[in-house]
Amino acid sequence: MSHWIALDIGGTTLRAACFPTDSLTPTCINKTPTQPAGPETLPRLIELARSVWPVGQAVAGIGVAAPGPVDPSAGVVLKAPSLPGWDNLPLRQILGEAFQTPVYVANDANVAALGEWVYGAGQGHQDLIYLTISTGIGGGVIANGQILLGANGLAGEMGHVTVLADGPVCSCGRRGHLEALASGPSIASWVEEQLQNGAESNLPQGTQLNAWQIAAAANAGDRLAIAAFERAGAYLGAALAIFINILNPSAVILGGGVARSGELLLAPIRKVLKQQVYSHHFLDRLKLTSVALGDEAGLLGALALAQGLAEKSA
Amino acid sequence: MSHWIALDIGGTTLRAACFPTDSLTPTCINKTPTQPAGPETLPRLIELARSVWPVGQAVAGIGVAAPGPVDPSAGVVLKAPSLPGWDNLPLRQILGEAFQTPVYVANDANVAALGEWVYGAGQGHQDLIYLTISTGIGGGVIANGQILLGANGLAGEMGHVTVLADGPVCSCGRRGHLEALASGPSIASWVEEQLQNGAESNLPQGTQLNAWQIAAAANAGDRLAIAAFERAGAYLGAALAIFINILNPSAVILGGGVARSGELLLAPIRKVLKQQVYSHHFLDRLKLTSVALGDEAGLLGALALAQGLAEKSA
Repeated sequence: MSHWIALDIGGTTLRAACFPTDSLTPTCINKTPTQPAGPETLPRLIELARSVWPVGQAVAGIGVAAPGPVDPSAGVVLKAPSLPGWDNLPLRQILGEAFQTPVYVANDANVAALGEWVYGAGQGHQDLIYLTISTGIGGGVIANGQILLGANGLAGEMGHVTVLADGPVCSCGRRGHLEALASGPSIASWVEEQLQNGAESNLPQGTQLNAWQIAAAANAGDRLAIAAFERAGAYLGAALAIFINILNPSAVILGGGVARSGELLLAPIRKVLKQQVYSHHFLDRLKLTSVALGDEAGLLGALALAQGLAEKSA
Repeated sequence: MSHWIALDIGGTTLRAACFPTDSLTPTCINKTPTQPAGPETLPRLIELARSVWPVGQAVAGIGVAAPGPVDPSAGVVLKAPSLPGWDNLPLRQILGEAFQTPVYVANDANVAALGEWVYGAGQGHQDLIYLTISTGIGGGVIANGQILLGANGLAGEMGHVTVLADGPVCSCGRRGHLEALASGPSIASWVEEQLQNGAESNLPQGTQLNAWQIAAAANAGDRLAIAAFERAGAYLGAALAIFINILNPSAVILGGGVARSGELLLAPIRKVLKQQVYSHHFLDRLKLTSVALGDEAGLLGALALAQGLAEKSA
């Protein structure tokens, strides 16, 4: 029997899985921390792929979810802020030479969108937006029953759209991007700033907070924590209104750690969407939902990529 | 010989043309003012179509560029602010019964985008953004070599994205939309307001200005007029940066009366694009250009729609 290998190069964890060609259940799955991140991550990725390789059996191809902007037609990682030394890395060529099998590489958020579309919460939709809200904010778009890659494979950089002119500095150095207003660390920074300015809250002052703690406090009724999610949700709603005006999807799928806060974030998103989207026709049949695959979206998307399902037709 | 009929329902002018199936040169082209706009526009549209109908010859189909949000699969005009009485108008059914031939209806900006893509400035591009900047701002997207219609055919409402929270009121009633900041009337309103506030300029105070006058003044060195185009161009650049981050097109095509101001508008657009787009990779091979078809984009797009070229494959 033939197999597919799926690789997911996350900022925290490297994942590898081996799937029989007739099944979504991996015969083997393995992971290892991404750290220390840098050139040495590459040999560890190759070792990890070997660790799930089927013994004495054929592999039809490798699908890879890679960080940062990727040129998917060349299989090159263009820029990987979390992996020093990976800029312009010809990943397809390197893995192809190491394993002598076809390799397919795409941006991790695009791959996760593909996974959710083919095997998760997006099944049956021909037009959808996937947004992952975590340390950063990434996205992927399915349009007309195909993954939207754009002219150079760079489409879907939904986290780096400006939603507040002259707003806070983003991880990329620009100002007022969605990621700088609604990612986990940006929610925490805003709360820390409010605490320093004397806002009342049960959250501890002078320590580094995270979005989990703030969600827990919000669920316990802490007003500052609730306001933090309302603010982040409002920016997400404003950005999604723009995306929806342009793309008119039938589903919006939210993933990543911050999205696990559920209604804390979804309620303000819905409210602002209703206020800002051009016409109610855009929302009438829109499904706003959470991911179905969770941490497995990257691996299942990499599987779908290897299987050539990025262009599943309508 | 068989023919196609193309209809373009503009806010100012109704256009109709008859094209032989083997040519882009119409055998007959006719137009009439849209005014008085309302239910009576419909019989005049039908009369106009009859006026270009080929005598004693077959018609293979009718393509229609219709105003407002349109449901292209049902051929229904959902909302037409400029044509009272046209909301929820089943245009495909009405024209189909009148002419007993297949009818294809789509939103006018989407149809113009299709025209520029198939026969104009977008030829050869598989991913492009078309923006028409005139009394209003509309748009259309080609993605993966297909016109992007979205789940309900509403995609491409690029004029109604929020670029300035709590900004000026838009024609649709919402605030801070691109159309309320960079359309012809919004450029004129801003200049009139500055004049009232005592700004120095050679433009006349207390009269209703238009974008043509302001462009002429800007070309003659009037600083207020130049500032007006810099401001509109900056908002257009900010919106385009968002669109480009999401769609990664290889071409952006600008049309409509305001875009005829050329470098007055293009220079600030380029400047802000460079500042706000996520990475230079998005701009490296991007063609920013003007329409090639001008007022004929609607008719040639309607022709392409009738010809079934909305899904021209890569």
